[in-house]
Amino acid sequence: MLDINTDAFFMREAIKQAKKAFDENEVPVGAIMVCNNHIIAKAYNQVEVLSDATAHAEMISITSASEYLGAKFLNDCTLYVTLEPCMMCAGAIKWSRISKLVIAAADEKEGFITKYKANHLLNTKTEIIFGIEEKEATQLLKDFFQKLRNNNQRNWN
Amino acid sequence: MLDINTDAFFMREAIKQAKKAFDENEVPVGAIMVCNNHIIAKAYNQVEVLSDATAHAEMISITSASEYLGAKFLNDCTLYVTLEPCMMCAGAIKWSRISKLVIAAADEKEGFITKYKANHLLNTKTEIIFGIEEKEATQLLKDFFQKLRNNNQRNWN
Repeated sequence: MLDINTDAFFMREAIKQAKKAFDENEVPVGAIMVCNNHIIAKAYNQVEVLSDATAHAEMISITSASEYLGAKFLNDCTLYVTLEPCMMCAGAIKWSRISKLVIAAADEKEGFITKYKANHLLNTKTEIIFGIEEKEATQLLKDFFQKLRNNNQRNWN
Repeated sequence: MLDINTDAFFMREAIKQAKKAFDENEVPVGAIMVCNNHIIAKAYNQVEVLSDATAHAEMISITSASEYLGAKFLNDCTLYVTLEPCMMCAGAIKWSRISKLVIAAADEKEGFITKYKANHLLNTKTEIIFGIEEKEATQLLKDFFQKLRNNNQRNWN
């Protein structure tokens, strides 16, 4: 059983969001914004349903948290995200001054650090942690792309 | 008099948006999305009024254009923006597959090319044009920051 208020606990909440994306045929990425040990925003990737290429889980959770706090800066907040942010989302994390970023799985194709080596984009004080609940987040992504391939195969038969 | 349907004509529309931002005490940046010579979205920076650090003119115009077209990809669209996009907005331009990006003024502090040399972030087919109506866009930004300094000075007297 997981203790509450740990990085693993909050990441499991982000994975629940990613599973919602999976069920709605979106690339399964989820995000949670935590402020003083309270979850103030939950979001999942909604690019397809909103027909909006910017509707990544991180972007929605930042806008939602800012709305909740009535503040553009999220200095005391931690963002938990199941897949490493892309450059767009890393830029948003920088602008909103999030103090801590916890990532489950690295993204070799689009990750702002793993692909673009852009650690320097964020404030040097921003704490970044990789690998929390990585296995489950990665498995969910693998299952999603396998499902896509199976569906495409069926469409060709 | 400006011909319609030229880059300068559309950039002047973007500058009109930037002036709205100026009048509302937002950093004066405006953006226009054009598809088949029609303006399908107009936006200006609304970070302060929305208390949302992600509410840059480019982000709002991309979401608005996607809503208008009912499509996440904006392949046949041109984005006119009065200040060079930051990394967040450049990421959004990449994801939405905008085919042409027209910029008035370069941004030495945050520009995705001028500061971060991240030309490679966008698809190599994306056409990028700098310097259209640069002088007026730059003057508007200078006037804004001078106004801010004057206001701050008054607050100290």
